[in-house]
Amino acid sequence: MSESLIKEIYEPLQSMRLIDPHTHINPLQAASTTLADILGYHYYTELAHSAGLPKARIEESGISPKEKVARLIPSLAAIENTAQYSWLLEICQEFFDFRDERITEANWETLYDHSLKKMQSADWANSVLEQSGLDQVYLTNDFDDPLAGFDTRKYVPCLRTDDLVFHLAKPDVRERLQRITGINPGSGDTLRQALGKLFEHFTAKGARACAISLPPDFAPTAITPTAADSVVAKVFAGKELSTDDSIVLSCFVFWSLAEFCVEYKLPFDLMIGVNRRVYEDGVYQGQDLFNSRVSLIQYKALFNAFPRVVFPVSVLAETSNQELVSYSWIFPNVVTSGHWWYSNIPVYIERDTRARLQAVPQTKQIGYYSDMYKLEFALPKFAMYRRILARVLAEDFVLRRAWTVEQAVALGKRVLRGNVESIFGSCE
Amino acid sequence: MSESLIKEIYEPLQSMRLIDPHTHINPLQAASTTLADILGYHYYTELAHSAGLPKARIEESGISPKEKVARLIPSLAAIENTAQYSWLLEICQEFFDFRDERITEANWETLYDHSLKKMQSADWANSVLEQSGLDQVYLTNDFDDPLAGFDTRKYVPCLRTDDLVFHLAKPDVRERLQRITGINPGSGDTLRQALGKLFEHFTAKGARACAISLPPDFAPTAITPTAADSVVAKVFAGKELSTDDSIVLSCFVFWSLAEFCVEYKLPFDLMIGVNRRVYEDGVYQGQDLFNSRVSLIQYKALFNAFPRVVFPVSVLAETSNQELVSYSWIFPNVVTSGHWWYSNIPVYIERDTRARLQAVPQTKQIGYYSDMYKLEFALPKFAMYRRILARVLAEDFVLRRAWTVEQAVALGKRVLRGNVESIFGSCE
Amino acid sequence: MSESLIKEIYEPLQSMRLIDPHTHINPLQAASTTLADILGYHYYTELAHSAGLPKARIEESGISPKEKVARLIPSLAAIENTAQYSWLLEICQEFFDFRDERITEANWETLYDHSLKKMQSADWANSVLEQSGLDQVYLTNDFDDPLAGFDTRKYVPCLRTDDLVFHLAKPDVRERLQRITGINPGSGDTLRQALGKLFEHFTAKGARACAISLPPDFAPTAITPTAADSVVAKVFAGKELSTDDSIVLSCFVFWSLAEFCVEYKLPFDLMIGVNRRVYEDGVYQGQDLFNSRVSLIQYKALFNAFPRVVFPVSVLAETSNQELVSYSWIFPNVVTSGHWWYSNIPVYIERDTRARLQAVPQTKQIGYYSDMYKLEFALPKFAMYRRILARVLAEDFVLRRAWTVEQAVALGKRVLRGNVESIFGSCE
Repeated sequence: MSESLIKEIYEPLQSMRLIDPHTHINPLQAASTTLADILGYHYYTELAHSAGLPKARIEESGISPKEKVARLIPSLAAIENTAQYSWLLEICQEFFDFRDERITEANWETLYDHSLKKMQSADWANSVLEQSGLDQVYLTNDFDDPLAGFDTRKYVPCLRTDDLVFHLAKPDVRERLQRITGINPGSGDTLRQALGKLFEHFTAKGARACAISLPPDFAPTAITPTAADSVVAKVFAGKELSTDDSIVLSCFVFWSLAEFCVEYKLPFDLMIGVNRRVYEDGVYQGQDLFNSRVSLIQYKALFNAFPRVVFPVSVLAETSNQELVSYSWIFPNVVTSGHWWYSNIPVYIERDTRARLQAVPQTKQIGYYSDMYKLEFALPKFAMYRRILARVLAEDFVLRRAWTVEQAVALGKRVLRGNVESIFGSCE
Repeated sequence: MSESLIKEIYEPLQSMRLIDPHTHINPLQAASTTLADILGYHYYTELAHSAGLPKARIEESGISPKEKVARLIPSLAAIENTAQYSWLLEICQEFFDFRDERITEANWETLYDHSLKKMQSADWANSVLEQSGLDQVYLTNDFDDPLAGFDTRKYVPCLRTDDLVFHLAKPDVRERLQRITGINPGSGDTLRQALGKLFEHFTAKGARACAISLPPDFAPTAITPTAADSVVAKVFAGKELSTDDSIVLSCFVFWSLAEFCVEYKLPFDLMIGVNRRVYEDGVYQGQDLFNSRVSLIQYKALFNAFPRVVFPVSVLAETSNQELVSYSWIFPNVVTSGHWWYSNIPVYIERDTRARLQAVPQTKQIGYYSDMYKLEFALPKFAMYRRILARVLAEDFVLRRAWTVEQAVALGKRVLRGNVESIFGSCE
Repeated sequence: MSESLIKEIYEPLQSMRLIDPHTHINPLQAASTTLADILGYHYYTELAHSAGLPKARIEESGISPKEKVARLIPSLAAIENTAQYSWLLEICQEFFDFRDERITEANWETLYDHSLKKMQSADWANSVLEQSGLDQVYLTNDFDDPLAGFDTRKYVPCLRTDDLVFHLAKPDVRERLQRITGINPGSGDTLRQALGKLFEHFTAKGARACAISLPPDFAPTAITPTAADSVVAKVFAGKELSTDDSIVLSCFVFWSLAEFCVEYKLPFDLMIGVNRRVYEDGVYQGQDLFNSRVSLIQYKALFNAFPRVVFPVSVLAETSNQELVSYSWIFPNVVTSGHWWYSNIPVYIERDTRARLQAVPQTKQIGYYSDMYKLEFALPKFAMYRRILARVLAEDFVLRRAWTVEQAVALGKRVLRGNVESIFGSCE
């Protein structure tokens, strides 16, 4: 196939400005301050650990950022082949003037020192946003986040609800809920009121979505406040819950969140399939895996019950993508969302992208989000996606369906940005 | 890769005449009468609905065909990217002289009126068959279809058995069975006799297959007539069945069908994996989805018990294709069949085709069927398949295994038509 | 893409010498003696049977090798399309001077006679090893194999443990264990001692791995010797085990093996996903299939409990590959291993290879093993893999990530051989 055709499609996609609809950015410290913030990303610590670096070396308390980087560098040789490493290299090349082919024990220190200078420059975060072409960055905020001290039109709040649905049995989660809402729930109704306060707070601050990550065995059903009364009373009295109790509580909270999404007109991001703490001795954030035996049929009741809530759905395994494509093709309220975590490598992105572009209405696809913790990662991750997207558009649409380059580029722009605005709200 | 090589393989495949071994054609009204028959295909209504068009707008009773089309046209913009839309465009171009790039609110009425004239021309159905190169079209007939009023050598009957296996608890299904067979079953044996009458009737009319679509949790086991006596008596007395009763009844009927397939020498088409009515408020025929957690191991007992029945197997999810490939590679009585429904888009067809051509005996592959409701759809659907088939033959056989173009074309012809004849019977 | 680039990468991979880290070679009769040894490989007998040749024709006792080949030859026409057939053709071309395009009823006898002469030449096995570039061939030995009469540096022993974990209920397995160890186990501890003797024996003979194939529903848990006492006593008393008993026994033995792998510093090859005897009337070794509903989450406890054991993991279904990639990316002790059985065809090898190279540390990937029963198969199987590997390296690394050819070749050599040596031990 003609590389020049791909380039012709890639260039307008590459130069357009973006909205990143799902990240874990801390808006008060959005950019990296040292290379340790970048190499400390779990993708590198977990790969380095997987390749043999002891966790204790990586996570020793009290080591300096430079020492941490020094310890990680020798492991890079083992992971040079990975897509994750290619992001690192691209970050160093694009932001820190790095010109070598590899980051090695011989050249890392120069890179470290030079990058430090760049990161200490005035307004580094905004430079990164500018160079990356980012207009907006969506956040994933704890439910008790004050959402203060930053520009919520640039860093857009989203309500993360994992703790509420799955961790109310933890005392500190209940305390945080009570503190932020001023409510001490003792019944289904009062817990529901507390949840409502969170939506009020978040939407007042411009929140654009409610979001949650879900284990592969979760299958939400409708639980009324009354049916939840006893288990809510139990958990807020600090009593132990049975497995059945926990399921009732999770379903009740989850279902209530969906109801508030109707009331507050928020999309509900579902990130389906993660098993937490599978590798118990893994590094920080490097312990989770998945079970491919999950099915969206588990969400049948939810999707039917909430026709007015838009559910941007991310799946963790490529084996779930065809179900996602088919559900989005059938259910008006299900839309495809990005390429999550273990599926965020080129081979899976390419296939998932092809299937979605071939079978889901073009208005119902959120092409990509970075999932990043530090701003520097949007650039290489979106670049990876845009290269794949340009190739798929060239092959499947221009060459095989005789679309014009203009049509192909328009489709690319829509999934990259247009749909983010139509689904979550425009960038004022 | 050389496009000219692909073309060299594609042309003889494109010009050959076909048999379509699975459709939902009504032979008494085989072709479309207006564009509403075409746009009313569930692939379009469900995608339009998914993209935002209310079901009530699509299914309002009493609207004219032209009004129905008028209401659907504005939704096409949202689904232009889909493979399904590309079939529509190809139909309009090939059959109705349409020359624009898109079907829009500005040009649809001209298209409607012009296509109407073409469809009203004498012998339209036969023109479509001719232009599509179709020698035979297999049907999927209700068990009480009189099979009269059409040429059964052109429109080949097949016995659809979903109602018998899964819906005998519905009064109208029992009544239809009693009416067509003259038997009022009160035991396993008499129900079996009734089923036998259906095979007698169908084979007398030239039926070539027994067919059924199956939910992902179905796992057939042998049930003798005696073991089914009580549940048959119960259901035909109009009593409620327990879940266990229903399973016994389904298995008994299903197993009996397989036994009659031995006796009447019919292949038994299994279409495995559909969950019915998942989206309860979906448009007509746009409510079904699947659960990828299905396995062909559920059919172990069946495949072992009936070595003399050929089972052309279709799977709904691409994740089931490797199991299908492996079962067809091992079991003499299992053959691969087409690319069904949610898997009938290029990305999945290509991969499934590659795997089957690389690992299943070439004599055991039914390449494609259209699954169409109206004759006009065979042309674009088979064209899509033939383009993909030509590319796979070019890459995997001519380039990578040094086959000649003639060998590759012969393989293509075999899976396109030769195997249909050797498995279901030749086209006299 | 440039074919010359692929060739540039392929050539050094093709000319390098190899270690084959998993085979079923009998070192006392490593090479074929007639073409019947080659065509008798289950890949051909099962495909021929699947294509219609009765099992009784293939497995009739007392027929000569030549007669067996004569009976199989007519079935080859039906399977010419398969990757398996391409290996056969390549064997005949590379080892037996075959020059035709097809093996047919017209030319097979000449081939048979000529190949017989070649196979009868002095030192045929070593010629095959030499022509195939093989330095070492790993075996899969029964636990009571004397491991005598061959050069264990060339033919490397590995302890196959299927019988121990899953078949102690069979009298002959218990007898073999008692005979080889001199122990008559009556308790968890004594059974454990017997297992220890096997490790002692095998490692004394240079064994490099413990290996097992596992059914899709196996989920190992820790069972102490004491907890296993009663079931061990029961089975060695020849009493019937309940299903629960069998699970306890399997888990106890399996867990003990993992403990001995720590003690004897052996990697533990896990080959996950095979259902035995699914097609009960299948030909010899052509009866097994799989169930894609397996998950590596079933091995969570194992991978956590044995951080010091390296687990080279093979999966049977391509749908399990992403889990394998992700587990290898997270768990230091999990490495990817080859392309097993039903996944050993180009379409699956290519995708699995891409995913692994993109996301698993390059030090943790065993690229390929032949799984062969006769030496002649290493050549075509490794050639198939190396062609795919060269293409993936060219596309994903040189073209898309701007690697040099040298870097790409180095990565290829590492997964082909370097990691085999670093994981199992070097080739002295």
